[in-house]
Amino acid sequence: MSPAPVISDCRARRDRVREALATAEQPVDAIVISDLVNVRYLTGFTGSNAAVLIWADDPRSDRICTDGRYLTQVAEQTPDLPAVIARNCLVELVDRAHDSGGATIGFESDVVTVAQHEALLARFEEAGSGPELVGRTGLVQRLREIKDAGEVELLRQACAIGDRALAAIIDRGVIVPGATEREVARTLEWEMYALGADAIAFETIVAAGANSAIPHHRPTDDVLATGDFVKIDFGAVVGGYHSDMTRTYVLGRAADWQREIYDLVADAQAAGRAALEPGADLRGVDAAARSVIADAGHGEHYVHGLGHGVGLQIHEAPGIGALATGTLPCGAAVTVEPGVYLPGRGGVRIEDTLIVTDTAPDLLTATDKAFTVI
Amino acid sequence: MSPAPVISDCRARRDRVREALATAEQPVDAIVISDLVNVRYLTGFTGSNAAVLIWADDPRSDRICTDGRYLTQVAEQTPDLPAVIARNCLVELVDRAHDSGGATIGFESDVVTVAQHEALLARFEEAGSGPELVGRTGLVQRLREIKDAGEVELLRQACAIGDRALAAIIDRGVIVPGATEREVARTLEWEMYALGADAIAFETIVAAGANSAIPHHRPTDDVLATGDFVKIDFGAVVGGYHSDMTRTYVLGRAADWQREIYDLVADAQAAGRAALEPGADLRGVDAAARSVIADAGHGEHYVHGLGHGVGLQIHEAPGIGALATGTLPCGAAVTVEPGVYLPGRGGVRIEDTLIVTDTAPDLLTATDKAFTVI
Repeated sequence: MSPAPVISDCRARRDRVREALATAEQPVDAIVISDLVNVRYLTGFTGSNAAVLIWADDPRSDRICTDGRYLTQVAEQTPDLPAVIARNCLVELVDRAHDSGGATIGFESDVVTVAQHEALLARFEEAGSGPELVGRTGLVQRLREIKDAGEVELLRQACAIGDRALAAIIDRGVIVPGATEREVARTLEWEMYALGADAIAFETIVAAGANSAIPHHRPTDDVLATGDFVKIDFGAVVGGYHSDMTRTYVLGRAADWQREIYDLVADAQAAGRAALEPGADLRGVDAAARSVIADAGHGEHYVHGLGHGVGLQIHEAPGIGALATGTLPCGAAVTVEPGVYLPGRGGVRIEDTLIVTDTAPDLLTATDKAFTVI
Repeated sequence: MSPAPVISDCRARRDRVREALATAEQPVDAIVISDLVNVRYLTGFTGSNAAVLIWADDPRSDRICTDGRYLTQVAEQTPDLPAVIARNCLVELVDRAHDSGGATIGFESDVVTVAQHEALLARFEEAGSGPELVGRTGLVQRLREIKDAGEVELLRQACAIGDRALAAIIDRGVIVPGATEREVARTLEWEMYALGADAIAFETIVAAGANSAIPHHRPTDDVLATGDFVKIDFGAVVGGYHSDMTRTYVLGRAADWQREIYDLVADAQAAGRAALEPGADLRGVDAAARSVIADAGHGEHYVHGLGHGVGLQIHEAPGIGALATGTLPCGAAVTVEPGVYLPGRGGVRIEDTLIVTDTAPDLLTATDKAFTVI
């Protein structure tokens, strides 16, 4: 059931790594990618120990490495990529690249630890000769920002499961006074599985009453009560791709202050969505939403960034926040999720997942955002 | 509901870090711990961005750092530890340690990436002066190997939930011909939640028929059939602590080859458990079980280590395998999980979680291990 990436898509992604190597300031003969999510992106392999070797000029010498537990799986998932079986995949592939004539070999310096790097250096020092190791950061992460058609389709499926699951539990009267936060969270997760989710995207947040003022609250046995804000932040995984959506409702009857901050957050969220244009400055996108909240005097009650990229990870590049650098690429999948949190009283967050396009952003999370008392 | 670590336990753990710093070959004035699991172990804080600064000689200067999203949570979870609010906790705490007179500052070189380390060095180079940064590996991980009474209690609760959940779904006739691997996995997880699990310990493995020969199979829509091996590897999380258990059953009627390899794995598992003595060589423990399987001619069908430490992570120190180094400490929580996998036919794994004690190991996973046809 779980859709696997098309083998030709993975090959095209490895070719994009090759292009990036060729156009880099500091060229390398090959690079070893050891971040597991990046390995999955470039190969389709989903095991828990792996690395991939990509040559700048010869795809036929590319290799994937994993250990003996995944002998069957690697043959099934990466039939087009010869596998090397070893425990320490980083060392194994750097060794192989060196033995095959690689003089300068790239590695992911934002993934490889200081201790792993020291071990590599010590190994080659002992051997009396070794390659030059060149650290690269964010190379594959930047490629991953722009989703191809297959990725958008998986994100769309994951978001649709989120929409349908939330609608189903509202219809069935699960979110009612007397239910606990945990019960609501577990039922929502069960529903996502029943609708075909491979996994839950992250620890589901159900936060009622004063708990809704805690941005990342973990569901407790606290009971939902009439008049509570109920903030629900959740997602499904399909084929490795994560959906992410937050909706905040009021239970039974709403107070004026609740309508007020809800409308404020909704306005800010709309402003953030409207700012999602290819090439937009990331800080500018954040500011478009943040200024709405700040102008209403609630700047101090909005304590996080506006959004983040989403894909094989629930949080990935690009980050959209006040300290972000860079611009929004066309084809990025991002969340827009401002919030206002009043400590001890309650909070509102409204979040969508969208694809940045040349025209209006493609809204993947379709659940209504009008102020709703349930 | 989710039990929090006792604050005094966390303080005692930080004092053990202090002792380890004092007795190290290369002494440091302070250390910054940035691995999130280690931070949780030392402070009780469970947010997704944090680091902790521990001084060699002055607990009053210890600090935790997290960002603005966790303002409320950090105050609640670590009331005894002053909090610094910043985005980049590693940099912030190294800076603070330097500003407070730290000349040599430790960091986790098996956690900090090459890029983070370079950024720290560049920062101090720019400033014209900086501390000496000293990499340490596995310091907190080694302390975590030995579980205190509170940790053993949480592991016991997590394992008991696993036992009860598996018994419940067998009683209810969930594991039957016609059910899919996914249905069995989801029902087992739902049951663990219903019994009080905070989370699922890892992606539940339910592998039927030929799939059982894949050591780390992900549940599919494949249907269970009479005569299948059904291998179930799963766990619950309570208060951050993970249980881990595998049982393999036969559905309906068993063939001779199934009995044969089941008995072989059961013998190997018993030999592995019997070898769990304080001070035992880790490779020797692995060999105790592995030799049983190798002597029966199935060495090549047992492609992984014997077991691993378990606690705040599902896999932690000590690893018990053919390439392990070191010995087993008294008080360690470990799994013992040999397997035999016959590609295309089926496989058996039997796994328990146990505490190493001065007498017989304390078996936390109580589910029966006799050959069972269900």
